[in-house]
Amino acid sequence: MRNIRLIIRYDGTKYNGWQKQGNTEQTIQGKMEQLLTKMTGESIELAGSGRTDAGVHALAQVANFHTHSSMTEKEMAEYMQEYLPKDIGIVEVKEVGERFHSRLNAVKKQYEYRIYMGQENPVFERKYCWHIQEPLNVEAIKKASESFIGQHDFKSFCGNKKMKKSTIRRIDEIQVIKDGNWLILRFTGNGFLMNMVRILTGTLVEVGQGKKEVQDMEKILLAKSREKAGMLAPAQGLFLVKVWY
Amino acid sequence: MRNIRLIIRYDGTKYNGWQKQGNTEQTIQGKMEQLLTKMTGESIELAGSGRTDAGVHALAQVANFHTHSSMTEKEMAEYMQEYLPKDIGIVEVKEVGERFHSRLNAVKKQYEYRIYMGQENPVFERKYCWHIQEPLNVEAIKKASESFIGQHDFKSFCGNKKMKKSTIRRIDEIQVIKDGNWLILRFTGNGFLMNMVRILTGTLVEVGQGKKEVQDMEKILLAKSREKAGMLAPAQGLFLVKVWY
Repeated sequence: MRNIRLIIRYDGTKYNGWQKQGNTEQTIQGKMEQLLTKMTGESIELAGSGRTDAGVHALAQVANFHTHSSMTEKEMAEYMQEYLPKDIGIVEVKEVGERFHSRLNAVKKQYEYRIYMGQENPVFERKYCWHIQEPLNVEAIKKASESFIGQHDFKSFCGNKKMKKSTIRRIDEIQVIKDGNWLILRFTGNGFLMNMVRILTGTLVEVGQGKKEVQDMEKILLAKSREKAGMLAPAQGLFLVKVWY
Repeated sequence: MRNIRLIIRYDGTKYNGWQKQGNTEQTIQGKMEQLLTKMTGESIELAGSGRTDAGVHALAQVANFHTHSSMTEKEMAEYMQEYLPKDIGIVEVKEVGERFHSRLNAVKKQYEYRIYMGQENPVFERKYCWHIQEPLNVEAIKKASESFIGQHDFKSFCGNKKMKKSTIRRIDEIQVIKDGNWLILRFTGNGFLMNMVRILTGTLVEVGQGKKEVQDMEKILLAKSREKAGMLAPAQGLFLVKVWY
């Protein structure tokens, strides 16, 4: 059987996240499986590198599926391009080795959170950022972000309170980039818990607003309690940027 | 009476253009006048630098209105910011001399047309460009664009067939910028007729597709007939970028 890897870009605004839930087709996975099933005439299951929350976007989500289809990569790309809604794009279609699995083989991921700090409405980016009108203390955010680098128990930053598996993850880098009125937070790590990037962002924003101190970060990590961390940043500012294998 | 100049940014997707038409509030001008009337308690008329078609966007439309209000520029900006829909943004509010008129005093304007030539859907820019999947001959477009520089009768490029006033305009520059899969056409001139930038763009795209020749451009200008020019490019790729006074 052939194993096909897809790189998928999507605007998550209208979707209930990546992951299929029951029969609803308003998920990216559901939409894609429906299309691939039609394309191949087989019942296709599409494995993604991981979930994205409702409203979160992706520049390059990775997914793979198995098929007996004899279509070329190019034919598949053209078929999908023709029938996909305009808010989903296929960046690449590639046949890979049979053992490749987009979730199990992922070793590193990058997410980006976009904040607009200007007074006026970010008219063209309004669905792709968090609009915070008061300027943030970017130096404080940078300092606070350093507390999260390395391997930690991120239980305080996990949106799933019933999480039974390990909540230990490794963050390799948090880039804090100020570009005019834009503030970009770019997180790279070996894996992220449910809502983790959004809770980290919400907490760092509270530091930038002076509501939390840089030295609180260590305490929040050690508390292993969601209540100690900051707010959940809105989904629409978050992008899955890259997955490494 | 005070004369207030606004610089306004808008996503034209949902609007029936800049210009008020009867009682419909689905125009930018109508929406703004409604808000300014509420803000000042006076019946406000807002003069824009010019119309934009339904679906066309603006990075910096200029408009002005007269008022007896004693609000400061900052108070006005904050009021508008609070009550405007998210697809309209106020970039600047400034009190100007009583003789300033945003349309009559405009001496030069710049429009930008954005084309995406990649295979895949331009997911995040899909409402802000024209998606043309086949690559265009950019060198031919550049050469063809030179025919339009200077003062010409642009009757062939006027969408209003009943136009009784002069159709002579001066184009100072057409920048043709290729950036990866993006092709940006930037038009600067002393004024533009109805649909003029979109018909120029449609004609240049036909050159890029090999459907028209570079040397046809002169003939189309001389024909003074809308039928000789190319297609009307879709509204959603067009932005009013700047107005000079």
